[in-house]
Amino acid sequence: MTQADAAAAPRARFRPPAVPDVEVRGFWGARIDAVASRTADILYQRCVEAGMLEQIDPDRPVPAQSIPFHLDHDFTASTVTTQMFWDSDLGKTIETAAYSLYRRPNPALEAKVDAVIDMYARLQQPDGYLSSWYQRMQPGRRWTNLRDCHELYCAGHLIEGAVAYYQATGKRKLLDVMCRYVDHIISVFGPGGQEGYCGHEEIELALVKLARVTGDERYMALAKTFIDRRGQEPHYFDGEARARGDEPKTFHFKTYEYNQSHEPVRDQDKVVGHAVRAMYLYSGMADIATEYGDDSLRVALDRLWDDLHSKRLYVTGGLGPSADNEGFTADYDLPNESAYAETCAAVGLAFWASRMLGMGPNARYADSMELALYNGAISGLSLDGATFFYENPLESRGDHHRWTWHRCPCCPPNIARLTASIGSYIYGVADDAVAVHLYGDSTARLEVGGHPVRLTQASRYPWDGAVRIEVTVEAPTRFTLHLRIPGWCPQARLAVNGGAVDLAAATRNGYATIERDWQNGDSVTLDLAMPVQRLYANPQVRQDAGRVALRRGPLIYCLEAVDNPVPPSRIRLPRQARFEARFEPDLLGGATVLAGEAEAEAVQDWDGALYRSEPPAAEPVPIRAVPYFAWDNREPGEMQVWLRGG
Amino acid sequence: MTQADAAAAPRARFRPPAVPDVEVRGFWGARIDAVASRTADILYQRCVEAGMLEQIDPDRPVPAQSIPFHLDHDFTASTVTTQMFWDSDLGKTIETAAYSLYRRPNPALEAKVDAVIDMYARLQQPDGYLSSWYQRMQPGRRWTNLRDCHELYCAGHLIEGAVAYYQATGKRKLLDVMCRYVDHIISVFGPGGQEGYCGHEEIELALVKLARVTGDERYMALAKTFIDRRGQEPHYFDGEARARGDEPKTFHFKTYEYNQSHEPVRDQDKVVGHAVRAMYLYSGMADIATEYGDDSLRVALDRLWDDLHSKRLYVTGGLGPSADNEGFTADYDLPNESAYAETCAAVGLAFWASRMLGMGPNARYADSMELALYNGAISGLSLDGATFFYENPLESRGDHHRWTWHRCPCCPPNIARLTASIGSYIYGVADDAVAVHLYGDSTARLEVGGHPVRLTQASRYPWDGAVRIEVTVEAPTRFTLHLRIPGWCPQARLAVNGGAVDLAAATRNGYATIERDWQNGDSVTLDLAMPVQRLYANPQVRQDAGRVALRRGPLIYCLEAVDNPVPPSRIRLPRQARFEARFEPDLLGGATVLAGEAEAEAVQDWDGALYRSEPPAAEPVPIRAVPYFAWDNREPGEMQVWLRGG
Repeated sequence: MTQADAAAAPRARFRPPAVPDVEVRGFWGARIDAVASRTADILYQRCVEAGMLEQIDPDRPVPAQSIPFHLDHDFTASTVTTQMFWDSDLGKTIETAAYSLYRRPNPALEAKVDAVIDMYARLQQPDGYLSSWYQRMQPGRRWTNLRDCHELYCAGHLIEGAVAYYQATGKRKLLDVMCRYVDHIISVFGPGGQEGYCGHEEIELALVKLARVTGDERYMALAKTFIDRRGQEPHYFDGEARARGDEPKTFHFKTYEYNQSHEPVRDQDKVVGHAVRAMYLYSGMADIATEYGDDSLRVALDRLWDDLHSKRLYVTGGLGPSADNEGFTADYDLPNESAYAETCAAVGLAFWASRMLGMGPNARYADSMELALYNGAISGLSLDGATFFYENPLESRGDHHRWTWHRCPCCPPNIARLTASIGSYIYGVADDAVAVHLYGDSTARLEVGGHPVRLTQASRYPWDGAVRIEVTVEAPTRFTLHLRIPGWCPQARLAVNGGAVDLAAATRNGYATIERDWQNGDSVTLDLAMPVQRLYANPQVRQDAGRVALRRGPLIYCLEAVDNPVPPSRIRLPRQARFEARFEPDLLGGATVLAGEAEAEAVQDWDGALYRSEPPAAEPVPIRAVPYFAWDNREPGEMQVWLRGG
Repeated sequence: MTQADAAAAPRARFRPPAVPDVEVRGFWGARIDAVASRTADILYQRCVEAGMLEQIDPDRPVPAQSIPFHLDHDFTASTVTTQMFWDSDLGKTIETAAYSLYRRPNPALEAKVDAVIDMYARLQQPDGYLSSWYQRMQPGRRWTNLRDCHELYCAGHLIEGAVAYYQATGKRKLLDVMCRYVDHIISVFGPGGQEGYCGHEEIELALVKLARVTGDERYMALAKTFIDRRGQEPHYFDGEARARGDEPKTFHFKTYEYNQSHEPVRDQDKVVGHAVRAMYLYSGMADIATEYGDDSLRVALDRLWDDLHSKRLYVTGGLGPSADNEGFTADYDLPNESAYAETCAAVGLAFWASRMLGMGPNARYADSMELALYNGAISGLSLDGATFFYENPLESRGDHHRWTWHRCPCCPPNIARLTASIGSYIYGVADDAVAVHLYGDSTARLEVGGHPVRLTQASRYPWDGAVRIEVTVEAPTRFTLHLRIPGWCPQARLAVNGGAVDLAAATRNGYATIERDWQNGDSVTLDLAMPVQRLYANPQVRQDAGRVALRRGPLIYCLEAVDNPVPPSRIRLPRQARFEARFEPDLLGGATVLAGEAEAEAVQDWDGALYRSEPPAAEPVPIRAVPYFAWDNREPGEMQVWLRGG
C-alpha cells in the first residue's frame, strides 16, 4: 500500500488486550512455557549473580563498581558502564516475571520480586527520585548526563515492570513508587522545567503504558513532551555537555544520529543510529500519534517505516548491521556473517509495528511484526529458554552461539518479556472492531463496545495455514472483524459459517473485513496457502547478490551443517530445485523442515590445491532447511540463510 | 612438484646479488623511482613527526610517552605500545634510504640519516646495549620481556639498516655500532648465556645478513641458536613471565602459536599465529638451512610451505586473514572484505620464498615470491609512493583507503625497502650457476665462479611475456643458466641464439636449465604465453564459493567501481565470457586491462522493494578489470577480486 493509503486509513484506536486476557497455546504457548518455567527464574538469578541487589538495596553497604567504564570494544570509552543500566535489567526481569505469573503461579519467584520491589521502595528518595546508579554509585550527579547515562531509560523500564506487575498480581507497590518518581520527573522536565530528554529512548513508550493504566494524562503529556523536544535547537546535549565541562564534540559516537536527536523527530526521514533506540523512539511516537491523533507524527513514521523496509531490514526482520554503533549504516548494507542484528532491535521492531497497528489494521505493519517475532526476535532465545543471542547473524562459520549471560544483559529479559506477553500482540481492540493481527491456537476474552467477546483460534500455525476462529458472545453483537491476510500468502480463502467470502472485495489494507451481528457459535475459517517460497534481495544489497532465501509462511529458513551432507557454504540451489515441507514432531520441539535436492561443489578432485583453473565439479546433494529461529539449538556448525543460487 | 622432488633438488647455495649490482628498469624501475624520489623522504619525515628522534637522541630530554599502552583494539592490552618498535621503524627507514641512494643520490636525506646514525652511536651504552625504548623510556627493564616487547626485533631491523647503509654508502658507523651491540647480545644470549629468543622473530634473518657482510660466523651461529631454542621446554616465556611476577597464562594472545614458539621449529607443521612473525621465522630458518645444509629445517620448511599454500594463502599472495592476532585462523578461512592480509606479511612471504631459493632454483618458491611481489605486497604502496595500506582486502565497499601514516608504521618502510631492493630478488648466483627467478627489463652485473657476467633483460614484463636476455662476458664462461618457467604459464618457448630448446627435456623443478660455455653476445629468448585465466578456489574456501578470479601472467586482477557501469558486487561473470587484454599507457602509470562482457542484475524493476519472489533480471554490461596492486589509486568505490560467476 502507498503512504497515501495509510494516511487515509480509518481513524480509530486499536489497543492491545491485556496479557492475561489471551490464553496462548500451540507454537507460542510452548515458548511462553519455556519462559515461565525457566527463563523468568534464570533472569532473576543472573541479576543476583551480577551483584545487582547489592547496588539497589539501601540496607547494604555501597558495593565497589564491578563493571569498568572502559569496555573491551571501547564502547563510548570512559563515560559508560553497563552497570548504570542495571535498573533497566531489573525492570525487564520484573516485567518478565509478571507475565510469567499470569501463565503459571510461581510463589517463590513472586516473593523474590516482591523483595526487589521493597528495596526500590526503600531506596526511593523523599523527593521521589529513584536510580540505584546515581543514588548509590555516583551520588551528586543526577540529571547531568542524559545523553549517555540512561537515567530516564532506566525509569522507563521500571515503569513497564511496575505496570505489568500490577496487572499480573494486583500489587500496587512498585506502580506507586514509579508514579511518585514520574511526578518528580515532571517537576524537573515537565512544563516550565528543564528541556532534557533521554539519550536512550524508552521512557516515552513506558509513560504511555503508565498513563493508560492510571488514567493520568500528565504522564501521556510528558511522553509527548519528550518526543516533541527531541532534536530541537539549541541542542540539549550540547548544553548539558558544556555544563559538565565537556566539549560536545567529544561525544564518542560523533553524531546525534546515534540517538536520533540530530533533528526534530517530525523532520526525520532516515532510520539512523543505534537500532534499539530508534525502534523505541518510533514506538513512543506511534503511541503518541495514536493517542493524540497526531498526523504530523504519523507521516514521519510512515516515511521512516518505508526507509527501514526498503533499504535496511534483514530478511529475518533483524536490523542494525553494525556492532560499532549497534545500529544502522549505509543504504542496502546488510552483511550476513557480521550482522549485529541485536535481539533487542527485532524486539523493538515488533514494538513499533504493534503500535502502528494502534492506528488501524494494516498488513504493512502486521507483516513486519510477524516477521520480526517469528524470526529475528525469537532467534534470540534458545528453545529451552536458558540461553540467549545478543547478535543474530544470518550466516555463521559455526562459531556463534547463545550464551548464558552478558555484561550488557539487555536482550535476555527483552525477548523473554516479549514472548511471555505475545498474547497482547495477537489482537487489537477498538470500540466497534477487533483486528486479528496474528494467527495461532489461542483463546481471547475481549470486550468490544462493552460486550464480552471470546475468540477461539484453532490452528497449527505457523506450521499450517488453516485457521478456524470461533466466536462466543452472550448475545448477538455487532462489530467488525478485521482478519489479516499475510503479505507472504499467495492464495487465501475465507468463509463465515461455511459461506465463502469474496476476499478481493472484503480486503482493505491487507485485512479482510467482516462487519456483522455476530451470533454465539459463529465461525470463521481462513485458509492461508503456505508454499515454499524463494526470496531474492534487491541487487543493491551487495552481500546477497546471487543468493536466495527460503520462506514458508511467516518463517524464514536456514541451512545448518548438522542437517546437511556438506557445509552450507558449498551448497548451491538450482533455480528448478523443488522442496517438500515436512513436519517433524521430534525435531527442534516439532518443526516443519524443507527437504530438497541441490548441488555442491566437489572437493575430492582438488588434490590439495588451493586454486586452479578448472571450475569445481558439481554433485547432487539432498538438503534440509530448518526455521531460522531454531538454529544453534543442536551441534554447532556452519549456518546460512542466504544460499547461493539463482 | 612433490616434497620428495624438493628434497632431491641439487644442493647448492644460491645467494642474491647485492642491490646495486642490478639496474632495474620497466615495471619495477618505475616503482623504485617512486620510492627513491618520494617514499624514502616521506618515511624519514614521518618518523620525525612521530617524535622518534626525541626518543633516540641522548642529547635531548627524555620525552613523555606519546603512544599509550592501551590501544583502541586492545592489542595486547597493557604491555605493548607501538612506540617500543620505533627503533625498527628507523631501521627500515634507514634501509629504504640506503637502497634509494643506490638509485639516486639524495645528499639531504643522506645527511639526515647520518645524523640519526650519530644519535644511535651516542646512545649506545658502553657495554654495547642499544634500545631507545629501554634506555630512555623504560630504564632498568632490559631483557625482562622478550615475549612482548620486540627488543631483539628492533636490533634486527637496525642490523638490516646498518648492512644496507654500509653497502650503499661504504659508511661503517652504524654497522660497527650494531656489531658491538650483537657482541653484547652474544654475551647475554650466546653460548653459556640466557636461553631467550625474541617474541617477534626478525633478528635471525638479520644476523645472517650481518654474518654474510662481516664474515663473522658467530653472528650466523647466534641466528641458529635463536632458531634451535625456539619452543623448547621448559618454555623461556613461561619463566620470563614468572620472573617479572606475571602469570604466564595471562599472555594476551593465549597461545604461543601466536609467536610460533608453541613447539620446537623442526616439529612445526602448521602455519599459525601472527603472520609477519611466521614469515620472518621461516625466512631465518631457510637461511640457516641453506648456510648449514640443515635438512631437518628444510623438511620442516617444506611442510610449512605446503600448509600455507594448500590452506591459507590468498590468491593475491596475501596472508593472515584475521585482525585479532594479525594472523592465521582456521584451514581454508579466507574472508575477502575483512581480510587483514597485512602488507608486511606478503613482504615476509617474498622474504621467505627468496630464501628457499637459496637452496636451489625451484618454481614452487619463485612462483609464490612473484605472486606476493606483484600483488599482495606492492598493493601496500600507492603508485605515487606517498600512501600505504596496512590491510590488503580482496573486496571493499569503497571505504578502505591508503593512509599517510599509522601509529604502528611497520608496513610503509617494509614495502619500500622491498621495492627498492627488488633487483636482488631477480637472480640467485651460485659458484657455477645463475638462476633467473624474475623477469623484467634490467641489467645485472654478476660474478659467477670469479668471472664477471652481465645479463641484460629486455622485456615489457609483466605486461608482455616476451623476454630477451643478452649475455655479456669478457671471455667464454661455463655456467648453468636456470630460467624460471612460471607455473601460471600454459605455453612457453625458449631459444638460445635463435635455436629452439626442448623445454620439456630441459626443465627441472620448474626451471629450464641451460649449461654451456657462454659467449659474449649470446642471447636467450623466452616467450611466455599470457592468456587471461580464470581461477577457482578450493570449495572448502567458503568465502570464494561460486566465485572466480582473473589472472594474466603474474598479475591478479580486480574490478573497481570507477571502471565499470555498475558496482562490482552486481556483476556476474558467465562462464563463456571472453576477455581482451589491452595495454593502456595513460591508465595507472601504464597498465594492461582486461575488457570483457558480463551480466549485472537489474535494479530498475524493483520499485523500492528490498525483497521479492521473482529473481532479478540480468542485463549485459561491459566490464573492465585492472591489476589488483593498482586498486584505490583513483576515485573510491567498490572493489572485488573474486567475482560471482561460474
